Amino acid sequence: METWLTSLITDTPQQGFELAIKMARMGVKYTQPSAEVRDSLRDAYQNDADSLTWASQVVAVNFQTVAAANGYWR
Amino acid sequence: METWLTSLITDTPQQGFELAIKMARMGVKYTQPSAEVRDSLRDAYQNDADSLTWASQVVAVNFQTVAAANGYWR
Amino acid sequence: METWLTSLITDTPQQGFELAIKMARMGVKYTQPSAEVRDSLRDAYQNDADSLTWASQVVAVNFQTVAAANGYWR
Amino acid sequence: METWLTSLITDTPQQGFELAIKMARMGVKYTQPSAEVRDSLRDAYQNDADSLTWASQVVAVNFQTVAAANGYWR
Amino acid sequence: METWLTSLITDTPQQGFELAIKMARMGVKYTQPSAEVRDSLRDAYQNDADSLTWASQVVAVNFQTVAAANGYWR
Amino acid sequence: METWLTSLITDTPQQGFELAIKMARMGVKYTQPSAEVRDSLRDAYQNDADSLTWASQVVAVNFQTVAAANGYWR
Repeated sequence: METWLTSLITDTPQQGFELAIKMARMGVKYTQPSAEVRDSLRDAYQNDADSLTWASQVVAVNFQTVAAANGYWR
Repeated sequence: METWLTSLITDTPQQGFELAIKMARMGVKYTQPSAEVRDSLRDAYQNDADSLTWASQVVAVNFQTVAAANGYWR
Repeated sequence: METWLTSLITDTPQQGFELAIKMARMGVKYTQPSAEVRDSLRDAYQNDADSLTWASQVVAVNFQTVAAANGYWR
Repeated sequence: METWLTSLITDTPQQGFELAIKMARMGVKYTQPSAEVRDSLRDAYQNDADSLTWASQVVAVNFQTVAAANGYWR
Repeated sequence: METWLTSLITDTPQQGFELAIKMARMGVKYTQPSAEVRDSLRDAYQNDADSLTWASQVVAVNFQTVAAANGYWR
Repeated sequence: METWLTSLITDTPQQGFELAIKMARMGVKYTQPSAEVRDSLRDAYQNDADSLTWASQVVAVNFQTVAAANGYWR
Protein backbone atom coordinates (compact mmCIF):
# COMPACT_ATOMS: atom_id res chain seq x y z
CA MET A 1 0.00 0.00 0.00
CA GLU A 2 1.26 3.46 -0.87
CA THR A 3 1.88 6.00 1.90
CA TRP A 4 -1.42 7.75 2.55
CA LEU A 5 -1.54 8.56 6.27
CA THR A 6 1.39 10.45 7.69
CA SER A 7 -0.43 12.53 10.31
CA LEU A 8 -3.80 12.91 12.00
CA ILE A 9 -3.27 16.66 12.42
CA THR A 10 -5.29 18.96 10.19
CA ASP A 11 -5.69 22.71 10.00
CA THR A 12 -9.45 22.80 10.37
CA PRO A 13 -12.29 20.58 11.62
CA GLN A 14 -13.57 20.20 8.09
CA GLN A 15 -10.21 18.92 6.86
CA GLY A 16 -10.35 16.52 9.79
CA PHE A 17 -13.77 15.36 8.73
CA GLU A 18 -12.53 14.83 5.20
CA LEU A 19 -9.59 12.84 6.57
CA ALA A 20 -12.10 10.70 8.46
CA ILE A 21 -13.86 10.03 5.17
CA LYS A 22 -10.58 9.03 3.56
CA MET A 23 -9.89 6.69 6.48
CA ALA A 24 -13.33 5.09 6.07
CA ARG A 25 -12.62 4.54 2.37
CA MET A 26 -9.14 3.19 3.04
CA GLY A 27 -10.67 0.74 5.51
CA VAL A 28 -12.64 -0.56 2.56
CA LYS A 29 -9.72 -0.44 0.14
CA TYR A 30 -7.50 -2.64 2.29
CA THR A 31 -10.23 -5.29 2.17
CA GLN A 32 -11.20 -4.81 -1.47
CA PRO A 33 -8.11 -3.50 -3.29
CA SER A 34 -9.69 -3.54 -6.75
CA ALA A 35 -10.84 -0.07 -7.78
CA GLU A 36 -12.90 -1.70 -10.50
CA VAL A 37 -14.86 -3.78 -8.00
CA ARG A 38 -15.30 -0.85 -5.63
CA ASP A 39 -16.66 1.25 -8.49
CA SER A 40 -19.09 -1.50 -9.46
CA LEU A 41 -20.44 -1.56 -5.90
CA ARG A 42 -20.82 2.18 -5.68
CA ASP A 43 -24.04 2.51 -7.61
CA ALA A 44 -25.96 0.15 -5.35
CA TYR A 45 -24.83 1.55 -2.05
CA GLN A 46 -25.03 5.18 -3.06
CA ASN A 47 -28.73 4.60 -3.67
CA ASP A 48 -29.52 2.76 -0.46
CA ALA A 49 -30.35 4.92 2.52
CA ASP A 50 -29.13 2.43 5.11
CA SER A 51 -25.88 1.87 3.29
CA LEU A 52 -25.31 5.62 3.37
CA THR A 53 -26.15 5.76 7.07
CA TRP A 54 -23.69 2.98 7.85
CA ALA A 55 -21.02 4.73 5.81
CA SER A 56 -21.70 7.92 7.76
CA GLN A 57 -21.28 5.96 10.99
CA VAL A 58 -17.79 4.82 10.00
CA VAL A 59 -16.91 8.42 9.24
CA ALA A 60 -18.24 9.43 12.66
CA VAL A 61 -16.07 6.87 14.43
CA ASN A 62 -12.98 7.91 12.51
CA PHE A 63 -13.75 11.58 13.12
CA GLN A 64 -13.73 10.91 16.87
CA THR A 65 -10.13 9.80 16.51
CA VAL A 66 -9.08 12.70 14.31
CA ALA A 67 -10.82 15.26 16.52
CA ALA A 68 -9.15 13.91 19.66
CA ALA A 69 -5.78 13.99 17.89
CA ASN A 70 -6.30 17.67 17.12
CA GLY A 71 -7.46 18.63 20.60
CA TYR A 72 -10.82 19.31 18.98
CA TRP A 73 -9.27 22.35 17.22
CA ARG A 74 -9.97 24.44 20.31
CA MET B 1 -17.18 20.83 -0.97
CA GLU B 2 -18.15 24.21 0.43
CA THR B 3 -16.93 25.24 3.89
CA TRP B 4 -19.42 23.85 6.39
CA LEU B 5 -17.43 22.98 9.53
CA THR B 6 -15.25 25.67 10.99
CA SER B 7 -15.58 24.80 14.67
CA LEU B 8 -16.94 22.14 17.00
CA ILE B 9 -17.69 24.74 19.68
CA THR B 10 -21.33 25.62 20.26
CA ASP B 11 -23.11 27.81 22.77
CA THR B 12 -25.46 25.17 24.11
CA PRO B 13 -25.76 21.38 24.24
CA GLN B 14 -28.74 21.53 21.91
CA GLN B 15 -26.77 23.44 19.30
CA GLY B 16 -24.12 20.77 19.72
CA PHE B 17 -26.70 18.07 19.12
CA GLU B 18 -27.87 19.86 16.02
CA LEU B 19 -24.29 20.11 14.82
CA ALA B 20 -24.01 16.34 15.35
CA ILE B 21 -27.03 15.90 13.11
CA LYS B 22 -25.46 18.07 10.46
CA MET B 23 -22.27 16.00 10.67
CA ALA B 24 -24.28 12.80 10.23
CA ARG B 25 -25.94 14.26 7.15
CA MET B 26 -22.67 15.53 5.74
CA GLY B 27 -21.22 12.04 6.20
CA VAL B 28 -23.95 10.93 3.82
CA LYS B 29 -23.53 13.87 1.46
CA TYR B 30 -19.85 13.20 0.83
CA THR B 31 -20.80 9.69 -0.30
CA GLN B 32 -23.95 10.66 -2.21
CA PRO B 33 -23.49 14.26 -3.40
CA SER B 34 -26.74 14.40 -5.36
CA ALA B 35 -29.47 16.21 -3.40
CA GLU B 36 -31.99 14.73 -5.82
CA VAL B 37 -30.97 11.18 -4.99
CA ARG B 38 -30.84 11.90 -1.26
CA ASP B 39 -34.35 13.33 -1.42
CA SER B 40 -35.61 10.28 -3.27
CA LEU B 41 -34.25 8.03 -0.53
CA ARG B 42 -35.75 10.08 2.26
CA ASP B 43 -39.28 8.77 2.03
CA ALA B 44 -38.28 5.15 2.50
CA TYR B 45 -35.94 5.62 5.40
CA GLN B 46 -38.07 8.16 7.22
CA ASN B 47 -40.74 5.48 7.43
CA ASP B 48 -38.56 2.61 8.58
CA ALA B 49 -38.02 2.34 12.31
CA ASP B 50 -34.63 0.65 12.06
CA SER B 51 -33.38 3.20 9.55
CA LEU B 52 -34.33 5.92 12.00
CA THR B 53 -32.59 4.11 14.85
CA TRP B 54 -29.40 3.75 12.82
CA ALA B 55 -29.54 7.42 11.89
CA SER B 56 -29.93 8.27 15.57
CA GLN B 57 -26.87 6.17 16.34
CA VAL B 58 -24.72 8.17 13.95
CA VAL B 59 -25.94 11.34 15.64
CA ALA B 60 -25.04 9.84 19.03
CA VAL B 61 -21.50 9.05 17.92
CA ASN B 62 -21.01 12.52 16.47
CA PHE B 63 -22.50 14.11 19.58
CA GLN B 64 -19.86 12.36 21.70
CA THR B 65 -17.24 14.23 19.71
CA VAL B 66 -18.99 17.57 19.90
CA ALA B 67 -19.71 17.22 23.61
CA ALA B 68 -16.08 16.38 24.39
CA ALA B 69 -14.96 19.36 22.31
CA ASN B 70 -17.15 21.63 24.41
CA GLY B 71 -16.06 20.21 27.76
CA TYR B 72 -19.62 18.91 28.03
CA TRP B 73 -20.83 22.55 28.47
CA ARG B 74 -20.08 22.31 32.18
CA MET C 1 -37.20 22.72 17.13
CA GLU C 2 -38.22 23.69 20.64
CA THR C 3 -35.56 23.95 23.36
CA TRP C 4 -35.13 20.48 24.82
CA LEU C 5 -31.47 20.14 25.81
CA THR C 6 -30.05 22.83 28.05
CA SER C 7 -27.62 20.72 30.08
CA LEU C 8 -26.09 17.26 30.25
CA ILE C 9 -25.86 17.43 34.04
CA THR C 10 -28.30 15.30 36.01
CA ASP C 11 -28.71 14.58 39.71
CA THR C 12 -28.49 10.82 39.46
CA PRO C 13 -27.20 8.15 37.06
CA GLN C 14 -30.76 7.05 36.38
CA GLN C 15 -31.78 10.55 35.36
CA GLY C 16 -28.73 10.51 33.12
CA PHE C 17 -29.86 7.24 31.58
CA GLU C 18 -33.29 8.69 30.98
CA LEU C 19 -31.72 11.73 29.36
CA ALA C 20 -29.79 9.35 27.10
CA ILE C 21 -33.11 7.79 26.09
CA LYS C 22 -34.53 11.20 25.32
CA MET C 23 -31.48 11.98 23.20
CA ALA C 24 -31.92 8.74 21.27
CA ARG C 25 -35.54 9.63 20.60
CA MET C 26 -34.69 13.18 19.61
CA GLY C 27 -32.13 11.78 17.17
CA VAL C 28 -35.08 10.07 15.53
CA LYS C 29 -37.38 13.08 15.80
CA TYR C 30 -35.03 15.39 13.92
CA THR C 31 -35.11 12.91 11.03
CA GLN C 32 -38.81 12.07 11.22
CA PRO C 33 -40.59 15.11 12.72
CA SER C 34 -44.09 13.68 12.35
CA ALA C 35 -45.37 12.27 15.66
CA GLU C 36 -48.06 10.48 13.70
CA VAL C 37 -45.53 8.61 11.57
CA ARG C 38 -43.33 7.80 14.57
CA ASP C 39 -46.36 6.38 16.39
CA SER C 40 -47.27 4.27 13.39
CA LEU C 41 -43.76 2.77 13.37
CA ARG C 42 -43.77 2.04 17.07
CA ASP C 43 -45.84 -1.11 17.00
CA ALA C 44 -43.51 -2.91 14.59
CA TYR C 45 -40.26 -2.05 16.25
CA GLN C 46 -41.47 -2.55 19.80
CA ASN C 47 -42.17 -6.14 18.85
CA ASP C 48 -38.90 -6.89 17.11
CA ALA C 49 -36.07 -8.04 19.33
CA ASP C 50 -33.30 -6.72 17.10
CA SER C 51 -34.98 -3.33 16.77
CA LEU C 52 -35.08 -3.13 20.55
CA THR C 53 -31.42 -4.13 20.81
CA TRP C 54 -30.41 -1.46 18.30
CA ALA C 55 -32.43 1.12 20.18
CA SER C 56 -30.68 0.08 23.40
CA GLN C 57 -27.35 0.54 21.67
CA VAL C 58 -28.13 4.14 20.79
CA VAL C 59 -29.07 4.73 24.43
CA ALA C 60 -25.77 3.17 25.50
CA VAL C 61 -23.77 5.49 23.25
CA ASN C 62 -25.64 8.54 24.46
CA PHE C 63 -25.26 7.42 28.07
CA GLN C 64 -21.48 7.35 27.61
CA THR C 65 -21.66 11.04 26.81
CA VAL C 66 -23.97 11.92 29.68
CA ALA C 67 -21.96 9.86 32.18
CA ALA C 68 -18.71 11.52 31.16
CA ALA C 69 -20.35 14.94 31.45
CA ASN C 70 -21.34 14.13 35.01
CA GLY C 71 -17.97 12.76 36.04
CA TYR C 72 -19.73 9.41 36.32
CA TRP C 73 -21.61 10.74 39.41
CA ARG C 74 -18.66 9.73 41.57
CA MET D 1 -39.98 3.77 36.19
CA GLU D 2 -38.81 2.43 39.55
CA THR D 3 -35.36 3.42 40.86
CA TRP D 4 -32.88 0.98 39.39
CA LEU D 5 -29.63 2.89 38.85
CA THR D 6 -28.24 4.77 41.82
CA SER D 7 -24.54 4.35 41.13
CA LEU D 8 -22.11 3.14 38.48
CA ILE D 9 -19.61 2.04 41.14
CA THR D 10 -19.21 -1.68 41.69
CA ASP D 11 -16.89 -3.75 43.86
CA THR D 12 -15.50 -5.90 41.07
CA PRO D 13 -15.17 -5.87 37.26
CA GLN D 14 -17.60 -8.76 37.02
CA GLN D 15 -20.24 -6.86 38.99
CA GLY D 16 -19.58 -4.00 36.59
CA PHE D 17 -20.11 -6.28 33.63
CA GLU D 18 -23.35 -7.50 35.14
CA LEU D 19 -24.44 -3.90 35.67
CA ALA D 20 -23.70 -3.29 31.99
CA ILE D 21 -26.01 -6.18 31.14
CA LYS D 22 -28.72 -4.69 33.30
CA MET D 23 -28.27 -1.35 31.54
CA ALA D 24 -28.61 -3.04 28.16
CA ARG D 25 -31.82 -4.69 29.28
CA MET D 26 -33.18 -1.49 30.78
CA GLY D 27 -32.47 0.24 27.47
CA VAL D 28 -34.89 -2.27 25.98
CA LYS D 29 -37.40 -2.03 28.82
CA TYR D 30 -37.84 1.73 28.45
CA THR D 31 -38.82 1.14 24.81
CA GLN D 32 -40.89 -2.01 25.39
CA PRO D 33 -42.26 -1.80 28.95
CA SER D 34 -44.36 -4.97 28.69
CA ALA D 35 -42.63 -7.92 30.35
CA GLU D 36 -45.02 -10.20 28.52
CA VAL D 37 -43.96 -8.90 25.13
CA ARG D 38 -40.28 -9.00 26.03
CA ASP D 39 -40.65 -12.61 27.13
CA SER D 40 -42.38 -13.50 23.88
CA LEU D 41 -39.45 -12.06 21.91
CA ARG D 42 -36.85 -13.87 23.95
CA ASP D 43 -37.14 -17.25 22.33
CA ALA D 44 -36.41 -15.94 18.85
CA TYR D 45 -33.48 -13.78 19.69
CA GLN D 46 -31.86 -16.21 22.09
CA ASN D 47 -31.62 -18.62 19.20
CA ASP D 48 -30.23 -16.24 16.61
CA ALA D 49 -26.46 -15.85 16.59
CA ASP D 50 -26.49 -12.32 15.21
CA SER D 51 -29.09 -11.18 17.72
CA LEU D 52 -26.84 -12.48 20.47
CA THR D 53 -23.81 -10.72 18.99
CA TRP D 54 -25.69 -7.43 18.81
CA ALA D 55 -26.83 -7.85 22.41
CA SER D 56 -23.23 -8.48 23.42
CA GLN D 57 -22.23 -5.29 21.65
CA VAL D 58 -24.64 -3.21 23.70
CA VAL D 59 -23.19 -4.78 26.84
CA ALA D 60 -19.69 -3.91 25.62
CA VAL D 61 -20.62 -0.26 25.09
CA ASN D 62 -22.24 -0.03 28.51
CA PHE D 63 -19.28 -1.78 30.11
CA GLN D 64 -16.98 0.92 28.72
CA THR D 65 -18.97 3.44 30.72
CA VAL D 66 -19.04 1.39 33.90
CA ALA D 67 -15.34 0.55 33.68
CA ALA D 68 -14.39 4.20 33.22
CA ALA D 69 -16.59 5.15 36.18
CA ASN D 70 -14.69 2.68 38.33
CA GLY D 71 -11.23 3.74 37.20
CA TYR D 72 -11.02 0.30 35.59
CA TRP D 73 -10.84 -1.24 39.12
CA ARG D 74 -7.09 -0.64 39.12
CA MET E 1 -22.77 -17.06 37.19
CA GLU E 2 -19.35 -18.33 38.25
CA THR E 3 -16.55 -15.84 38.90
CA TRP E 4 -14.89 -15.15 35.56
CA LEU E 5 -13.73 -11.51 35.59
CA THR E 6 -11.60 -10.43 38.53
CA SER E 7 -9.37 -7.92 36.77
CA LEU E 8 -8.97 -6.09 33.47
CA ILE E 9 -5.18 -6.04 33.85
CA THR E 10 -3.16 -8.35 31.61
CA ASP E 11 0.53 -8.85 31.06
CA THR E 12 0.51 -8.29 27.32
CA PRO E 13 -1.69 -6.68 24.64
CA GLN E 14 -2.43 -10.09 23.20
CA GLN E 15 -3.69 -11.38 26.53
CA GLY E 16 -5.81 -8.25 26.67
CA PHE E 17 -7.20 -9.00 23.23
CA GLU E 18 -8.01 -12.52 24.32
CA LEU E 19 -9.74 -11.15 27.41
CA ALA E 20 -11.80 -8.93 25.10
CA ILE E 21 -12.83 -12.04 23.19
CA LYS E 22 -13.85 -13.74 26.41
CA MET E 23 -15.89 -10.67 27.36
CA ALA E 24 -17.66 -10.75 23.99
CA ARG E 25 -18.52 -14.40 24.52
CA MET E 26 -19.66 -13.82 28.08
CA GLY E 27 -21.92 -11.05 26.79
CA VAL E 28 -23.58 -13.76 24.72
CA LYS E 29 -23.57 -16.34 27.50
CA TYR E 30 -25.48 -14.12 29.91
CA THR E 31 -28.22 -13.85 27.30
CA GLN E 32 -28.11 -17.46 26.12
CA PRO E 33 -26.87 -19.57 29.07
CA SER E 34 -27.29 -22.91 27.31
CA ALA E 35 -23.97 -24.20 25.96
CA GLU E 36 -25.92 -26.64 23.83
CA VAL E 37 -27.84 -23.86 22.10
CA ARG E 38 -24.73 -21.73 21.66
CA ASP E 39 -22.95 -24.67 20.05
CA SER E 40 -25.86 -25.26 17.70
CA LEU E 41 -25.66 -21.64 16.53
CA ARG E 42 -21.93 -21.74 16.02
CA ASP E 43 -21.92 -23.50 12.68
CA ALA E 44 -24.12 -20.93 11.00
CA TYR E 45 -22.39 -17.84 12.24
CA GLN E 46 -18.85 -19.16 11.81
CA ASN E 47 -19.63 -19.49 8.13
CA ASP E 48 -21.20 -16.10 7.58
CA ALA E 49 -18.80 -13.29 6.80
CA ASP E 50 -21.00 -10.55 8.26
CA SER E 51 -21.59 -12.50 11.45
CA LEU E 52 -17.83 -12.79 11.85
CA THR E 53 -17.37 -9.08 11.21
CA TRP E 54 -19.97 -8.19 13.82
CA ALA E 55 -18.32 -10.52 16.31
CA SER E 56 -14.99 -8.85 15.60
CA GLN E 57 -16.62 -5.48 16.27
CA VAL E 58 -17.72 -6.55 19.74
CA VAL E 59 -14.17 -7.68 20.44
CA ALA E 60 -12.89 -4.31 19.24
CA VAL E 61 -15.20 -2.43 21.61
CA ASN E 62 -14.22 -4.62 24.54
CA PHE E 63 -10.54 -4.29 23.66
CA GLN E 64 -10.86 -0.51 23.90
CA THR E 65 -11.87 -0.97 27.51
CA VAL E 66 -9.14 -3.47 28.33
CA ALA E 67 -6.47 -1.40 26.60
CA ALA E 68 -7.45 1.74 28.50
CA ALA E 69 -7.42 -0.23 31.76
CA ASN E 70 -3.85 -1.28 31.04
CA GLY E 71 -2.63 2.16 30.03
CA TYR E 72 -2.20 0.68 26.57
CA TRP E 73 0.72 -1.43 27.89
CA ARG E 74 3.05 1.50 27.28
CA MET F 1 -2.79 -18.96 19.09
CA GLU F 2 0.67 -17.81 18.06
CA THR F 3 2.07 -14.54 19.40
CA TRP F 4 0.82 -11.79 17.12
CA LEU F 5 0.30 -8.69 19.29
CA THR F 6 3.22 -7.61 21.44
CA SER F 7 2.67 -3.85 21.34
CA LEU F 8 0.19 -1.21 20.24
CA ILE F 9 2.98 1.26 19.50
CA THR F 10 3.78 1.97 15.87
CA ASP F 11 6.13 4.38 14.14
CA THR F 12 3.53 6.06 11.97
CA PRO F 13 -0.25 6.56 11.83
CA GLN F 14 -0.42 4.41 8.73
CA GLN F 15 1.31 1.51 10.47
CA GLY F 16 -1.20 2.02 13.27
CA PHE F 17 -4.04 1.83 10.77
CA GLU F 18 -2.59 -1.37 9.35
CA LEU F 19 -2.31 -2.78 12.87
CA ALA F 20 -6.00 -1.94 13.34
CA ILE F 21 -6.76 -3.95 10.21
CA LYS F 22 -4.78 -6.88 11.55
CA MET F 23 -6.70 -6.65 14.83
CA ALA F 24 -10.01 -6.69 12.95
CA ARG F 25 -8.91 -9.79 11.06
CA MET F 26 -7.64 -11.49 14.21
CA GLY F 27 -11.03 -10.80 15.80
CA VAL F 28 -12.46 -12.91 13.01
CA LYS F 29 -9.74 -15.56 13.17
CA TYR F 30 -10.33 -16.31 16.84
CA THR F 31 -13.96 -17.06 15.98
CA GLN F 32 -13.28 -18.88 12.69
CA PRO F 33 -9.79 -20.41 12.95
CA SER F 34 -9.96 -22.20 9.60
CA ALA F 35 -8.09 -20.27 6.91
CA GLU F 36 -9.86 -22.39 4.33
CA VAL F 37 -13.30 -21.31 5.54
CA ARG F 38 -12.24 -17.66 5.84
CA ASP F 39 -10.96 -17.76 2.26
CA SER F 40 -14.22 -19.26 1.04
CA LEU F 41 -16.14 -16.40 2.64
CA ARG F 42 -13.91 -13.73 1.21
CA ASP F 43 -15.35 -13.64 -2.28
CA ALA F 44 -18.88 -12.90 -1.09
CA TYR F 45 -18.05 -10.19 1.38
CA GLN F 46 -15.43 -8.48 -0.77
CA ASN F 47 -18.18 -7.89 -3.30
CA ASP F 48 -20.85 -6.60 -0.95
CA ALA F 49 -20.74 -2.90 -0.22
CA ASP F 50 -22.33 -3.18 3.23
CA SER F 51 -19.97 -5.98 4.24
CA LEU F 52 -17.07 -3.74 3.30
CA THR F 53 -18.53 -0.83 5.26
CA TRP F 54 -18.97 -2.98 8.35
CA ALA F 55 -15.41 -4.24 8.01
CA SER F 56 -14.22 -0.64 7.77
CA GLN F 57 -16.15 0.15 10.96
CA VAL F 58 -14.28 -2.54 12.90
CA VAL F 59 -11.02 -1.08 11.64
CA ALA F 60 -12.17 2.37 12.76
CA VAL F 61 -12.91 1.14 16.28
CA ASN F 62 -9.58 -0.64 16.55
CA PHE F 63 -7.77 2.40 15.16
CA GLN F 64 -9.23 4.50 17.98
CA THR F 65 -7.45 2.22 20.41
CA VAL F 66 -4.16 2.19 18.53
CA ALA F 67 -4.20 5.96 18.02
CA ALA F 68 -4.83 6.60 21.72
CA ALA F 69 -2.02 4.20 22.61
CA ASN F 70 0.34 6.22 20.44
CA GLY F 71 -0.72 9.61 21.74
CA TYR F 72 -2.12 10.20 18.26
CA TRP F 73 1.48 10.37 16.95
CA ARG F 74 1.59 14.05 17.87
